Amino acid sequence: MASIDLQRLKLAAYPLTRTLTTRVSDMDGNGHLNAIRIGHLYEDARAAFYGVAFEGLPRIRAVVAELKIRYLREGRWPGEVEVATGIESFGGRSYVMVQGLFQAGLCIGLCDTVLVNTAHGHAAPLPEANLAGLERMRLRDVPAAV
Amino acid sequence: MASIDLQRLKLAAYPLTRTLTTRVSDMDGNGHLNAIRIGHLYEDARAAFYGVAFEGLPRIRAVVAELKIRYLREGRWPGEVEVATGIESFGGRSYVMVQGLFQAGLCIGLCDTVLVNTAHGHAAPLPEANLAGLERMRLRDVPAAV
Amino acid sequence: MASIDLQRLKLAAYPLTRTLTTRVSDMDGNGHLNAIRIGHLYEDARAAFYGVAFEGLPRIRAVVAELKIRYLREGRWPGEVEVATGIESFGGRSYVMVQGLFQAGLCIGLCDTVLVNTAHGHAAPLPEANLAGLERMRLRDVPAAV
Amino acid sequence: MASIDLQRLKLAAYPLTRTLTTRVSDMDGNGHLNAIRIGHLYEDARAAFYGVAFEGLPRIRAVVAELKIRYLREGRWPGEVEVATGIESFGGRSYVMVQGLFQAGLCIGLCDTVLVNTAHGHAAPLPEANLAGLERMRLRDVPAAV
Repeated sequence: MASIDLQRLKLAAYPLTRTLTTRVSDMDGNGHLNAIRIGHLYEDARAAFYGVAFEGLPRIRAVVAELKIRYLREGRWPGEVEVATGIESFGGRSYVMVQGLFQAGLCIGLCDTVLVNTAHGHAAPLPEANLAGLERMRLRDVPAAV
Repeated sequence: MASIDLQRLKLAAYPLTRTLTTRVSDMDGNGHLNAIRIGHLYEDARAAFYGVAFEGLPRIRAVVAELKIRYLREGRWPGEVEVATGIESFGGRSYVMVQGLFQAGLCIGLCDTVLVNTAHGHAAPLPEANLAGLERMRLRDVPAAV
Repeated sequence: MASIDLQRLKLAAYPLTRTLTTRVSDMDGNGHLNAIRIGHLYEDARAAFYGVAFEGLPRIRAVVAELKIRYLREGRWPGEVEVATGIESFGGRSYVMVQGLFQAGLCIGLCDTVLVNTAHGHAAPLPEANLAGLERMRLRDVPAAV
Repeated sequence: MASIDLQRLKLAAYPLTRTLTTRVSDMDGNGHLNAIRIGHLYEDARAAFYGVAFEGLPRIRAVVAELKIRYLREGRWPGEVEVATGIESFGGRSYVMVQGLFQAGLCIGLCDTVLVNTAHGHAAPLPEANLAGLERMRLRDVPAAV
């Protein structure tokens, strides 16, 4: 377990936030949000992110190459969560999306997704306009006092 | 396909309403809410219903004996839904919960669930207090003009 | 709860059978197969059914209008299930698919699905060739002694 | 994206293998196995692993601290998958479970899970007997020629 970038625990560091309701079916037998089902919350925010970051831009097809989910605190039902999303870095063909899951003001989980742009089933360069879109959605520096 | 009780299409007929967010994972390949995944929305409202109807009453364990889901209109993501829940009827050991799924003010689906009360793995009489709790949550008559 | 057609409890009555593995995520907090998740087993067999019944025939798009799931016995994990599928009846634009879920030789559940054929988003007549395909997949009479 | 340990791509390197059927609901709109739903296949094999590795040993409660899923090839439905599971390393309170997902003989994905042993909601030392159980399930060296 690598150490955690403290910036990632702050809701204000992420340019986009989405509020979702948890479901009783998200829980496992222990009465807490299940490690895998939480993935659908991140996935939903990821899909919504594109509508904002790439609005009016060329439509790309990115595939998930790697998904890393960290569980910091046990989440609960019933209750809403906020899924915060931003871009950590990007190269010519891929980018790293970073997300935080917040409940009652606390960060309960993190998700890092490596996405690869594809065309006709192969990795392909990201269009310039989309790179600019990703740049606008970078994770922000939040002063330590916040 | 039996005919539909028009009362069931009115949000005001149900004593309890719960707002949930749809998820991109609820959709199937056609871009509409999937017939099975919709079941988790009804299930969530069913679990929340108990907290209201049976608050302070004996804790019972009811199992699903039958589930009938009707699709009236295609639902969409992103978007919220309202899941409305009430009781249609009950006997000594079982009861019928009825639900409506509403999106943008329209009823897009119905769910009827037959639940059987159990104790030690067998059907068992419902406690009087819980029967009274179910009675208070009956579907309401809504004037035709509404 | 209507009475059950005893024919439906016999694996041999269904023209098509499919073996699937249950998953730990299919269980709910009670340690039994969850009422909604079981729906994905029926859904999988439904999708596979088309590959057999309509092989080489015009491709149609049917949507689920109604889904009725009955739970006869509690299912368990780990373990395989057999999902048996057949056609109960059909009209010009719709048909009723019936399924049985079997575990360790016992019928643990039933599913009846009303499907409506559509074209361009509206109900549409089923092609003659597909009607013949459905006819070949009707539920079979099994002698009482079996 | 870090480089991949080639040992991880060999089915024979893992001490335990489990065969599961994919479901039509595992696919996303692109017709391939969905990145999140694949998680339930790994989860299932993880649950089954305990029955073998810890058979007759003290029952422990481990929670997922981190989950890293890598997608190497697109998986398909219908079709079986083999989920192979082993232990990469362990310390006093936690261990790293590693898994490979194979379809038609090819490794299509990898999963690394960091699990923390808990007692009364806090991290707790693993019993000696369970450490020995983990030792027996270590990933194996497979000669390069295999």
